[in-house]
Amino acid sequence: MKQYLKHDPWLIVEEDFHRNYNEITESVMSLGNGRMGQRGNFEEHFSGKTLQGNYIAGVYYPDKTRVGWWKNGYPDYFAKVLNAANWIGIDITIEYESLDLNTCEVRDFRRVLNMREGYLERSFVAVLKSGKELQVNTKRFCSIVDDEAGAIRYSLTPLNFDAKITVEPYIDGNIRNRDSNYDETFWDEVRKETAYGEGYIELRTRKTGFHVCSGMCVEIEQNGVRVDFQSQPIRREKYVANRMTLDCQQGQETVIYKYAVNLSSLNHDPDFMVGEAHKSIQRITRKGFDRMLLDQQQAWADKWKTNDITIEGDAAAQQGIRFCIFQLNQTYTGEDERLNIGPKGFTGEKYGGSTYWDTEAYCLPFYLSTADQKVSRNLLRYRYKHLEKAIENARKLGFKAGAALYPMVTMNGEECHNEWEITFEEIHRNGAIAYAIYDYIRYTGDENYLVEYGLEVLIAISRFWSQRVNWSEAKQQYVMLGVTGPNEYENNVNNNWYTNYLATWTLRYTIEAVGRVKELNHEKFNELCDRIHFREEKEIATARHIVDHMYFPYDETRQVFLQQESFLDKELMTVNEIPKGQRPLNQHWSWDRILRSCFIKQADVLQGIYFFEDDFDENTIRRNFDFYEPMTVHESSLSPCVHSVLASKLGMKDKAYEMYLRTARLDLDDYNNDTEDGCHITSMAGSWLAVVKGFGGMRIRNDQVVLNPYCPDNWESLAFKIRFRGALLEVKVTQTDVTVQNFSGKPVEILLFNETVSVAPNSKSRIEKTAEVD
Amino acid sequence: MKQYLKHDPWLIVEEDFHRNYNEITESVMSLGNGRMGQRGNFEEHFSGKTLQGNYIAGVYYPDKTRVGWWKNGYPDYFAKVLNAANWIGIDITIEYESLDLNTCEVRDFRRVLNMREGYLERSFVAVLKSGKELQVNTKRFCSIVDDEAGAIRYSLTPLNFDAKITVEPYIDGNIRNRDSNYDETFWDEVRKETAYGEGYIELRTRKTGFHVCSGMCVEIEQNGVRVDFQSQPIRREKYVANRMTLDCQQGQETVIYKYAVNLSSLNHDPDFMVGEAHKSIQRITRKGFDRMLLDQQQAWADKWKTNDITIEGDAAAQQGIRFCIFQLNQTYTGEDERLNIGPKGFTGEKYGGSTYWDTEAYCLPFYLSTADQKVSRNLLRYRYKHLEKAIENARKLGFKAGAALYPMVTMNGEECHNEWEITFEEIHRNGAIAYAIYDYIRYTGDENYLVEYGLEVLIAISRFWSQRVNWSEAKQQYVMLGVTGPNEYENNVNNNWYTNYLATWTLRYTIEAVGRVKELNHEKFNELCDRIHFREEKEIATARHIVDHMYFPYDETRQVFLQQESFLDKELMTVNEIPKGQRPLNQHWSWDRILRSCFIKQADVLQGIYFFEDDFDENTIRRNFDFYEPMTVHESSLSPCVHSVLASKLGMKDKAYEMYLRTARLDLDDYNNDTEDGCHITSMAGSWLAVVKGFGGMRIRNDQVVLNPYCPDNWESLAFKIRFRGALLEVKVTQTDVTVQNFSGKPVEILLFNETVSVAPNSKSRIEKTAEVD
Repeated sequence: MKQYLKHDPWLIVEEDFHRNYNEITESVMSLGNGRMGQRGNFEEHFSGKTLQGNYIAGVYYPDKTRVGWWKNGYPDYFAKVLNAANWIGIDITIEYESLDLNTCEVRDFRRVLNMREGYLERSFVAVLKSGKELQVNTKRFCSIVDDEAGAIRYSLTPLNFDAKITVEPYIDGNIRNRDSNYDETFWDEVRKETAYGEGYIELRTRKTGFHVCSGMCVEIEQNGVRVDFQSQPIRREKYVANRMTLDCQQGQETVIYKYAVNLSSLNHDPDFMVGEAHKSIQRITRKGFDRMLLDQQQAWADKWKTNDITIEGDAAAQQGIRFCIFQLNQTYTGEDERLNIGPKGFTGEKYGGSTYWDTEAYCLPFYLSTADQKVSRNLLRYRYKHLEKAIENARKLGFKAGAALYPMVTMNGEECHNEWEITFEEIHRNGAIAYAIYDYIRYTGDENYLVEYGLEVLIAISRFWSQRVNWSEAKQQYVMLGVTGPNEYENNVNNNWYTNYLATWTLRYTIEAVGRVKELNHEKFNELCDRIHFREEKEIATARHIVDHMYFPYDETRQVFLQQESFLDKELMTVNEIPKGQRPLNQHWSWDRILRSCFIKQADVLQGIYFFEDDFDENTIRRNFDFYEPMTVHESSLSPCVHSVLASKLGMKDKAYEMYLRTARLDLDDYNNDTEDGCHITSMAGSWLAVVKGFGGMRIRNDQVVLNPYCPDNWESLAFKIRFRGALLEVKVTQTDVTVQNFSGKPVEILLFNETVSVAPNSKSRIEKTAEVD
Repeated sequence: MKQYLKHDPWLIVEEDFHRNYNEITESVMSLGNGRMGQRGNFEEHFSGKTLQGNYIAGVYYPDKTRVGWWKNGYPDYFAKVLNAANWIGIDITIEYESLDLNTCEVRDFRRVLNMREGYLERSFVAVLKSGKELQVNTKRFCSIVDDEAGAIRYSLTPLNFDAKITVEPYIDGNIRNRDSNYDETFWDEVRKETAYGEGYIELRTRKTGFHVCSGMCVEIEQNGVRVDFQSQPIRREKYVANRMTLDCQQGQETVIYKYAVNLSSLNHDPDFMVGEAHKSIQRITRKGFDRMLLDQQQAWADKWKTNDITIEGDAAAQQGIRFCIFQLNQTYTGEDERLNIGPKGFTGEKYGGSTYWDTEAYCLPFYLSTADQKVSRNLLRYRYKHLEKAIENARKLGFKAGAALYPMVTMNGEECHNEWEITFEEIHRNGAIAYAIYDYIRYTGDENYLVEYGLEVLIAISRFWSQRVNWSEAKQQYVMLGVTGPNEYENNVNNNWYTNYLATWTLRYTIEAVGRVKELNHEKFNELCDRIHFREEKEIATARHIVDHMYFPYDETRQVFLQQESFLDKELMTVNEIPKGQRPLNQHWSWDRILRSCFIKQADVLQGIYFFEDDFDENTIRRNFDFYEPMTVHESSLSPCVHSVLASKLGMKDKAYEMYLRTARLDLDDYNNDTEDGCHITSMAGSWLAVVKGFGGMRIRNDQVVLNPYCPDNWESLAFKIRFRGALLEVKVTQTDVTVQNFSGKPVEILLFNETVSVAPNSKSRIEKTAEVD
């Protein structure tokens, strides 16, 4: 836990340079626009602790798998987020002294991430060994308007000297992934070009053959006037630069504008890439830094209009939730159905692959409520497009006849993970993908999606479940052997309640969806049956038989669902019985001890109850919550949010708030000592859930927004915005009342505290709190 | 399955050079003397497929662990059998043509491992590109008399030319382990020396700091007369050689004698090693090749006198069993309690570590019956000396108060394995170490071992079991959660019957042993209690409570023990239902599918029944055999032998013979396509078990040899020798009668077919078979 970043509602502020925390700050101050992104690195050379990171969405490398003991079925290679060329670099030399914050004295350092307007700025005075004092101010952003472009304003003011300053803006493709399994280089150079103030380099990834062309153009201003400069082009292996030496006078500001683009072969023909990059560079350079920044500010203002959450009375909480929303928007814009939400976004390269079940289980609701419908539709389409690969993946594991197992971790549909107990057994992920289809349709009403794509995915997943269970002669029921539930602190268990529930739910939903698609478009349905050899009668009969005869472990005494069949053979303890100094368990206990213990990494039975809360009465939910929550160590950042939502539902306000706090500022406070690897992007969606579904009590039921909001005790007010079927609502809740504002041109009917409230177009309704939640 | 090696009762013969099988032949024709050993490599340079391998017992390297996903508790480094300097090398150049069987034509090739006399010979005619024909005959052995020494006779005869032949005998320390995790070099040079015809090189292992000095001395004979030669010493990094150019006449034989020693710092002070190596070399060189070979032949004759098994009427079987006995004797002599039986012996380096539970469960009975009592005592002492490390190992996993968990794989007592489901969970190995103490004492009557060492080990292991079980409130019994039984095709199961049985057996035996040691030497017992803080009353009460309340999964319907609690939830099938082309399963099925299936890699419940057969009536044994054997795929070489022994006991002669065949010639016929990595040394002991305990029906009960022998149908006779408490017996069984010969000076009473038979000193008793076994 570190608290060196200042609390501010809209800014993340580092004051004074925290050299040892630099990699943490770099993660937190990452920039992204959905298409590309980068860590909050310095432009000038820095010889201290830093993880240089630039990432281009969708550009990956199949790294050779590393494994101790090979198991049949592991992928030989798996896709890894790729560190790409560094395009921000500007090396500064003042008469043979290199500007390097690691070797000079630094005064008045300030690095600020402006979340409201979407840029990073930095200012400091560098006192060089020679005594020269140089004022530096930088501003940088990845444009969300021109989403292949970024721009930098880098200003130098000598404070106590006149000197020739050599400036070398560059693009450097000599880059490795820190997490490369075999220290390989992943990029080859294709071509490079330099021109006056310009430089282009086209690199190709090994094996995958992605091309990325990075281009730059530099302009110099002195005293507010653009100056011509002598430029010496530099070309080395995978490196282009322009070196220029500028006369800088004491007190005079020299500004370097660096415009950059990153074009990838996902969107451009490699044969014409350098030319396109050149055109792109010309366009944005003409536009100019200030105009680009204005566009950026406007675009972010538009995002905040539909996304913002305001918390009055708690600056840290306000900053925390905005940081989550900001990073989620930086990571994924939903423009491109080939992309997804990496667990580290553009903030680091750890963990292969970009897509986990986090997307469906945690992130989708955020995008459903804050973005255009097409954004969440694209998230679903992403999986649809991977269906063939998921079928192939299942085939490798011995399944057949179109059964699909989506990978645990993926970039392109292929599996990127190789721990048998996860890769082959944490199969509940398949259910989350089915659930997302349900969740999306419930929210949007877009049943056409079911016709076009959803049912095909559902049938493939249901085929998997039908084959994955087996009939137990002993139980005279279906069982599901050898799985790992969401709680990865149990492996290879039998009859994980959550997985069994999700599997039978999928089967039921598929049966229902078959009926619905037949109603909506029988022709399309017949086409589908033909194409995927769906034998309706037989497959549905099988599914029904499984649904009717599935085994669910249950404790009659406590009346709780059992996480897995043998759970009650464990020694049941609560987290507060764990001896001091032994947490987190995964850093202190050997794996077998963790597995044998009753301690739960993240919501498991409760994850199921969270997904399907309408299936259970409140007492059932409470009994299960009371049984499992005290055994949960929350050693996954995805755990507290689910508990927070359920605790809110159960009126356990303190518990809900405690759980909310565990992830609300996870990265800002480096809670788990791992933010230097990158931010926990997907768990940020969990914080949003804790606020909107938890404190806000927001649900969608029967095509209607349902609200049961309350304001945590130590906040003055909480306000959040949601989009729902064309309407934009703001719900503001104080300790005494709730105001619902309707920004749309039609009336909206909601269910607030179980009563129907109609909010007129472009107006608000204020309701005094009548329902007390605790 | 390959059958290019000729059947012969005493020889392993390769006729014609099988280039593509060379690494297999090298494994099979390995030589060893317990102290050092090597693969059947060529002396001269060979550019073809070869795995150069020289190994020094007890000299290991802690290789950095390779793992895909780290689990807490894994060892950072683990000890690995180390490929050592090549001391056999003799490069031959005939007027600028290198002798290399990969590039010249080879005629009349013959490579023979002589098992009766313990040497390897080879002869061939090389037809060089120039047309020169050269006859080569070589003979080589690792002396079991001078066990730090080896000798080579390498003879050259030009058949159709006169020429100067350059001969370069060398020692080369530029060697790597093929299985090195990070391609590291493990050896550093310390010093080297050369002299006329001599060369010495001292290497030190990195990290572990073992020194090994290899020395050589060369003599040349032409026409049977020793000749002086011009010798040019050559010294390169980790390489010493003597180059000599010899005038060789057509038809004249030139013989190179190369004497070599390998001294290790396990037995010598590194400061004086080169000098000692020099003395050693002088001594053996004086002794001379022929005399050394005579010693070798005599020593092997002595071994065969007590070890041999003869099978009449089946040459392949005869060769197979002798090969097993030969390799077991080459691998481990029992001279040194610091050594153990590597799974590959001196025949390859695959798998880290040298010691598995194979030693206790499979190899110990072989050495008990064929070697001096001190040999098996040393095997036990090896574990005793690792007790502290086993306690430390258990402590790392969260156990306390002197509980010991012996490693799955080890060299020096530290764990060498890193698969959580094995390393942390295949804990039954601990029980095998306890069982070996029981087995040893039962065989030898050496109860003093219990007093001196055995009880201390038993208490430590029992402490582990007492902590590893937990009380299940649900069952109101003790359970053992999260284990992997001997059948590694189930992982992380609850209540593996075998493990539970072995655990409670250990507790019972420990309680009994405490009583016995108190009777035998109360003072020693008190000392022990003090030293290890043994709280007799409390610990025994705990043990008894566990013994009395342990849960054992059982199928009431079939009346069989259940391999694990959930076994009956699986789809029960038999091996013959596995579709064609899908075996071995571990090469065709993904790991989760294997785990979910009922198929068994190796004896599990049946391993327990094999160990404790007197605890079960024959019907129980038969029911369990009939239930489990049809589900067993025997994908471990340790599996068939146990089934063979039990089948023999149950009178299922065909099944017993079928199971015997599966390992009897495992390496000779490269049954599993993996002999090139080295031979399956420990499973060779299993073949011996199948013969002696299976066909021979040999047991020790009540301090007496018990025999229920039969001769498999297609053999004329079977004869095996066993040592028992000072006596040497030979049991010969034909289709009609059994002859027991007593080679000792005292009468021996045995139980043959349940009747007491007394065999007079140095005489034999012949009994017609009365008891039919099927």
